[in-house]
Amino acid sequence: MIIPPGHEFHSSRGAAQLSLKKISLIGVGLIGGSWMRAIRQANECQTIMGCGRQLENLEKAKQLGVIDDFTHDPAEAVEQADLVVLAVPLGAIENIVRKIKPVLSSKTIITDVGSAKGSVVDAVKNVYGFVPTNFVPGHPIAGTEQSGVEASFVTLFNNRRVILTPLEDTSEQALNLVKHLWQVAGADVIEMEVKHHDSVLAATSHLPHLLAYTLVDMLAHMESNSEIFKYAAGGFRDFTRIASSDPTMWHDICLANDKALLPILEQYIEQLQIIKEAVSNNDSESMMKVFQHAKESRDKFVG
Amino acid sequence: MIIPPGHEFHSSRGAAQLSLKKISLIGVGLIGGSWMRAIRQANECQTIMGCGRQLENLEKAKQLGVIDDFTHDPAEAVEQADLVVLAVPLGAIENIVRKIKPVLSSKTIITDVGSAKGSVVDAVKNVYGFVPTNFVPGHPIAGTEQSGVEASFVTLFNNRRVILTPLEDTSEQALNLVKHLWQVAGADVIEMEVKHHDSVLAATSHLPHLLAYTLVDMLAHMESNSEIFKYAAGGFRDFTRIASSDPTMWHDICLANDKALLPILEQYIEQLQIIKEAVSNNDSESMMKVFQHAKESRDKFVG
Repeated sequence: MIIPPGHEFHSSRGAAQLSLKKISLIGVGLIGGSWMRAIRQANECQTIMGCGRQLENLEKAKQLGVIDDFTHDPAEAVEQADLVVLAVPLGAIENIVRKIKPVLSSKTIITDVGSAKGSVVDAVKNVYGFVPTNFVPGHPIAGTEQSGVEASFVTLFNNRRVILTPLEDTSEQALNLVKHLWQVAGADVIEMEVKHHDSVLAATSHLPHLLAYTLVDMLAHMESNSEIFKYAAGGFRDFTRIASSDPTMWHDICLANDKALLPILEQYIEQLQIIKEAVSNNDSESMMKVFQHAKESRDKFVG
Repeated sequence: MIIPPGHEFHSSRGAAQLSLKKISLIGVGLIGGSWMRAIRQANECQTIMGCGRQLENLEKAKQLGVIDDFTHDPAEAVEQADLVVLAVPLGAIENIVRKIKPVLSSKTIITDVGSAKGSVVDAVKNVYGFVPTNFVPGHPIAGTEQSGVEASFVTLFNNRRVILTPLEDTSEQALNLVKHLWQVAGADVIEMEVKHHDSVLAATSHLPHLLAYTLVDMLAHMESNSEIFKYAAGGFRDFTRIASSDPTMWHDICLANDKALLPILEQYIEQLQIIKEAVSNNDSESMMKVFQHAKESRDKFVG
């Protein structure tokens, strides 16, 4: 894979910049929409073609200037594209790749924004029998509990981390292009192995989402649930914010990353059994050890 | 219990206002400090006497104008007080009540700000053999993950709910005074039964804190924990914010409200087992049901 036709270096604008003729965005939502806004603002692409299922959403995206045109057909969308961005829920990746494969130019670079990377690599393998060298698996660690292109904004990735998980034979040019386009969005781009990405994200993102959904669902099933929520303070609002995330997307993520998610969920249930015993036995020492260690760690690493 | 000497009505200032000669604040931290700032701003009290163990903290509180004077001796602090506010961790309540009982005037009104109310009522009963009619159990549903008097601010209770849990024979005058002093701080005051308070708060506050502490503690014990936290995004930061709360305070709350906390923790563990099975079995329908119901409920009641 070499730099596709239409990529030019504008040395007059400081750092070397690539100008793409066409990007195809499959799945026009918060993440893809925000990235396209940033790419457009940096003048990195001439045309952005959107592809999705909902007409209203695509029309909105065009109105907002996120895309120039749209189609419902992924195969049509990717024709002559320099870059294809797969920004659909993880469960839809394989189907999309299967649809675009026949029309995809061998020069087109492909990337995705999925929250689990092993399943994306597997989906591509299922279609191709291997992972093409111009496919760059990626994951921007950003987002809000909002979804949809209307929630997109140009600074979403500003100072956020984007993890790329290239394989051994991923083309360096493809990797560099994707990296560059994330950097123009203000992101801090990091490379990581697929498996390592998936276990780190299971711990800090996928498990917390599962926990928050399960808690809110349980409380909402309790009698007088509206009253219960009425007395919830700011702490509860923050703790459960991620339970307002898109259910389909998180359903897909949990299934896609089940191999990393299930063991850590199991481990967490064990830890809850232990803390339950501690509370039950008035075991102050064990409780304080957990609470203090948690506070110190969070204050140090996250706060 | 009648209105204590020194309580006067200033009808010239619109709504009837009580001006207290002396409030004793036992435990000078975020909650007590913020309430006193609001009471002082509303000109509702002439003198505020602080009491605590740490000299530095008390000196700071005096410098900040939160208290006028201080002592380390609770018995000395409450002499001739119109109102005593117990703002210490729940585990310290009984000991304090025991110390102040011998010198407390029968006219002094007492309240507390503890996050669990059954244990406070029990602590008072353990000392008196009954709950004095001028004791008003209270719980402001506000706070941040910060603690200490330096974190206190006058608007902390603005538009926040304060739950008072008077008993059957609680004096109406005592209840009204405490209610009034929360209202001048901008709070929305609600009355509730002790047991109901404790089960609602176990669900929306105590359980989430326990879950957050346990998660952060577990992740911080994992290999390369600093790397794990490095890739945590905003969702994780919000989800774990309450794990930065004061460990001693939350240790006390969990033990004080164990009767309400343990059953709901048990129920939550059961729900996690169910969702684990669903993920494990690729049971999309069950997962979507939980995720969608959670999102709808949160958006409706909390968002």
